[in-house]
Amino acid sequence: MNYLTYLPVWEKLDPSQQDTLLRAAVSRKFKKNEILHNGSADCTGLILVVSGQIRAFTVSDDGREITLYRLFERDICLFSASCIINSIQFDITVTAEKDTEALVISPEAYKSIMEISPPLANYTNEVMASRFTEVMWLIDQVMWKSFDKRLAGFLLNEASIEGTNILHITHETIGNHLGSPREVVTRMLKYFVSEGLVKLSRGLIEITDEGGLSSLEKTKR
Amino acid sequence: MNYLTYLPVWEKLDPSQQDTLLRAAVSRKFKKNEILHNGSADCTGLILVVSGQIRAFTVSDDGREITLYRLFERDICLFSASCIINSIQFDITVTAEKDTEALVISPEAYKSIMEISPPLANYTNEVMASRFTEVMWLIDQVMWKSFDKRLAGFLLNEASIEGTNILHITHETIGNHLGSPREVVTRMLKYFVSEGLVKLSRGLIEITDEGGLSSLEKTKR
Repeated sequence: MNYLTYLPVWEKLDPSQQDTLLRAAVSRKFKKNEILHNGSADCTGLILVVSGQIRAFTVSDDGREITLYRLFERDICLFSASCIINSIQFDITVTAEKDTEALVISPEAYKSIMEISPPLANYTNEVMASRFTEVMWLIDQVMWKSFDKRLAGFLLNEASIEGTNILHITHETIGNHLGSPREVVTRMLKYFVSEGLVKLSRGLIEITDEGGLSSLEKTKR
Repeated sequence: MNYLTYLPVWEKLDPSQQDTLLRAAVSRKFKKNEILHNGSADCTGLILVVSGQIRAFTVSDDGREITLYRLFERDICLFSASCIINSIQFDITVTAEKDTEALVISPEAYKSIMEISPPLANYTNEVMASRFTEVMWLIDQVMWKSFDKRLAGFLLNEASIEGTNILHITHETIGNHLGSPREVVTRMLKYFVSEGLVKLSRGLIEITDEGGLSSLEKTKR
């Protein structure tokens, strides 16, 4: 199967452009936790998710992490190919959150078509704007939301992604998503336990009061 | 004078496209502190700064502000024309920080050319990527930098923009740039005074030890 048809813009490319992209795309499999792209490394290529789940995050000078966005089936990561746009002057790291299959598209080939194809250039604009929207949401969260609300929102989102209220996730991993130290996560989770919102056991968090978490997330301050 | 030539892409547009943009651009003057674009309002248009200085910021539900980026002569604001790209799903507010002259370009005209012109579409990508880079810098700042370093960096940046170490700025305005309450700004400035870094008088902050502020900004944690 040609997974490049996952690109909404595929049918608007002419046959020779389609052919160029087809020859420039390599299917790759990544194990859970494998690094797909490392900020400081070269331009890896555009990553089109065929199946699985990937996480894009930024890392502080001293190694702390915060999740910028996650990508699922049919989503594409541009910033792993930052050389396609000169003004992208920041680094992100991309890892597989689950076993993932992806097409990696050569940045040179993509750029050569983007330079002549308005549909591909405008598609790229739309993708960047979607990620911008997610990052603006993140700014809103870290600037104005208290940590209890952010943690409640994170747990509800995880439950929605996984389709279950029993989450296999460590406190440290949650801290890396939210940009917070593990101890802060643990302390807040213990408070959630005392409020009857979750139950904890080793490596597991069970959401026991989804409505309670949801109203906590939504209350003002 | 045709200020549209400030667009680096101008010469790559064909004469009819140039003509469309010329007819779609209106020169406007804004007084200091005037609002050019309000997040919740309709698509104002692209704002190309001819002279002056503008500030783009985001506002929390309860009215707190944080500066996203500033634009100077020859810079262009895309997000005041968010309707040109469907996936821009966030609001910003744009005000004049100084008396400002700007061209306001109709979003419909710009979009109609962007849809057929690879140079304009790719230029738009570059502009968005520049803003993305500034917002990623902001995330790095608010997540990992302590407030003393951020304030030191802000004062040095102001001095560089204004070309003087005597800054006419209130503590509240600084708070709105940095997303912090006025009292927090005042407290830290008083600490800076005690360290001999600045002097305060009504409505004025004088940087007395630029090197000291600079090393404070750069020290780890």
